[in-house]
Amino acid sequence: MAVTGYAQKSFGWAATDTSGVLSPLHFSRRENGSDDVTIKILYCGVCHSDLHSVKNDWGFTKYPIVPGHEIVGLVTKTGCDVQKFKVGDRVGVGVIVGSCKTCDICQQDLENYCPKVIFTYNSRDQDGTRTYGGYSDIVVVDQHFVLHIPDNLSSDACAPLLCAGITVYSPMKYYGMAEPGKHLGVAGLGGLGHVAVKFGKAFGLKVTVISTSQKKESEAINKLGADSFLVSTDPAQLKAAMGTMDFIIDTIAAVHSLAPLLDLLKMNGKLVTVGLPDKPLELPIFPLVLGRKLVGGSDIGGMKETQEMLDFCGKHNINADIELIHIDYINTAFERLAKSEVRYRFVIDVANSLARN
Amino acid sequence: MAVTGYAQKSFGWAATDTSGVLSPLHFSRRENGSDDVTIKILYCGVCHSDLHSVKNDWGFTKYPIVPGHEIVGLVTKTGCDVQKFKVGDRVGVGVIVGSCKTCDICQQDLENYCPKVIFTYNSRDQDGTRTYGGYSDIVVVDQHFVLHIPDNLSSDACAPLLCAGITVYSPMKYYGMAEPGKHLGVAGLGGLGHVAVKFGKAFGLKVTVISTSQKKESEAINKLGADSFLVSTDPAQLKAAMGTMDFIIDTIAAVHSLAPLLDLLKMNGKLVTVGLPDKPLELPIFPLVLGRKLVGGSDIGGMKETQEMLDFCGKHNINADIELIHIDYINTAFERLAKSEVRYRFVIDVANSLARN
Repeated sequence: MAVTGYAQKSFGWAATDTSGVLSPLHFSRRENGSDDVTIKILYCGVCHSDLHSVKNDWGFTKYPIVPGHEIVGLVTKTGCDVQKFKVGDRVGVGVIVGSCKTCDICQQDLENYCPKVIFTYNSRDQDGTRTYGGYSDIVVVDQHFVLHIPDNLSSDACAPLLCAGITVYSPMKYYGMAEPGKHLGVAGLGGLGHVAVKFGKAFGLKVTVISTSQKKESEAINKLGADSFLVSTDPAQLKAAMGTMDFIIDTIAAVHSLAPLLDLLKMNGKLVTVGLPDKPLELPIFPLVLGRKLVGGSDIGGMKETQEMLDFCGKHNINADIELIHIDYINTAFERLAKSEVRYRFVIDVANSLARN
Repeated sequence: MAVTGYAQKSFGWAATDTSGVLSPLHFSRRENGSDDVTIKILYCGVCHSDLHSVKNDWGFTKYPIVPGHEIVGLVTKTGCDVQKFKVGDRVGVGVIVGSCKTCDICQQDLENYCPKVIFTYNSRDQDGTRTYGGYSDIVVVDQHFVLHIPDNLSSDACAPLLCAGITVYSPMKYYGMAEPGKHLGVAGLGGLGHVAVKFGKAFGLKVTVISTSQKKESEAINKLGADSFLVSTDPAQLKAAMGTMDFIIDTIAAVHSLAPLLDLLKMNGKLVTVGLPDKPLELPIFPLVLGRKLVGGSDIGGMKETQEMLDFCGKHNINADIELIHIDYINTAFERLAKSEVRYRFVIDVANSLARN
């Protein structure tokens, strides 16, 4: 199967139906425009959204779909109006590759919330073509949506920062959770949660991981640097920690109970959810009212803030903890991801495993 | 039945069991201490919490209970350390009459959230006695929890400001909802909601009332000054108003759906609930995440802010819209309140109807 007819030939792995099984696909991408850069992809992270999308869990997938929105690569072409990048630059592309650039929201550098946002895959691009993601050899992106990667970050391990990183960084800044000395709870220790722990420590917070899995305790504390660990299924531990946290970042994508998390918060505490459970959660109102607590949400971040996040990671030497895989392992990786059997993010070694047939 | 043994005789109406039926009660209150003022009660508003409390809906009522926490009266005694008030002053008492005064929360003028807060009724006072509310002839209160009433406010119609008023004022300030030109939705047009409309207009907001009852439209717009009216059970009206509001203050005490309210909000919109439904509400996560929206709560306000609210009402000549009743009408008033048949608050003419037998 091939989606062809555009100027630049591309090759990647795609799902073609709701089985979500990926296989090789030849397709093409638009010519490099005056504001575009063409990027040879080196690495691409495997986000939980990729899994939801290939299986059409959210109901808006168009097949074939080439997933991948945690892209690190090298610039191979620059358009005539591109000042920001030159050939050979190491760059990143995250969840979005376009927006209207003119609305109030875009003017506030919040392109991610623009009603005309263009996602890196499974979206309609500015020229009407479909967007295809980073499980592929090259990508063509408007320079505004391309990011500089700080020199000291690893090309493979920094890839998840483009989605998982900004997804937790942006709410930590927006909701005022980056105050040194405050106590942050990180609910769920996966791709997002483990980066939130690192950011929390870099911001000078006390960080407690809240997880269903006792076996993650040692790694959370000894490897990721969390200050403490709370097993969310243990009522005694929950009770002992009631009213001790200033903020909780809730990275749990499955349906779960908010009540115990709200109880962990101090007065004025903030619970910010970045997971996307597909059913409503139960929200008890008494703790919200009696403790002036809030439940907020947040979705990735704008381009300016994403660059700020990468520069922050450079300064604090923060990479994701990854398991590097070849592209032909992707279907097995998806199976393991569905069972949360990864610490903490798969990254595809695209350049070394994607052989154009 | 009498609760006696303290220095100052008092008389009021009390519920003695979960029927919630009120009848006359002789009791006593503590001697006026060095920091206390004794107040002859003129008027007392009838809050929905009074109804919940007399029926023990929340499970922590101790009988006999004398409700009432929207009190306006005249100072009749002042303790030797009282500088703030003199005999004859017109004063108000709201939902709380004590707190520890020393904790971090009290130091931030948030006595209402102090873990040792003392409520105006159905609470244990600083001296171990029970607190009894404003459906009575006198009350003895620590001066810190007594408020000055601006001269231009009506004694009867300003009484509801002490609870309903501060309950909506405080979150409007805390959550940044007082920005002129922004669009405020007021969900539920009862005791709280109708004051929120007045505050919204005084803050310079565009105000839309969101109500199940079409018949309130004319009054909301013509009498209360709302800019528009939305029938929350009409899908076409809801759809037309999607994404148009910056904030919603949700005063609905019954279990209700948050999804349509969240849909009315713009990106970054805030939904603040001040009602206390006794069951959890369903919280859809997608609108929170994709629109960076938040759901917050708030409970009355601290003493400094309550005085600020009263002064604001004085400046803008804001009273509540009330139906003045005699104390012997209270059981009927409760029945009507349970059916939301009041526009918008009952206030008891205590001084003219409470005859000490």
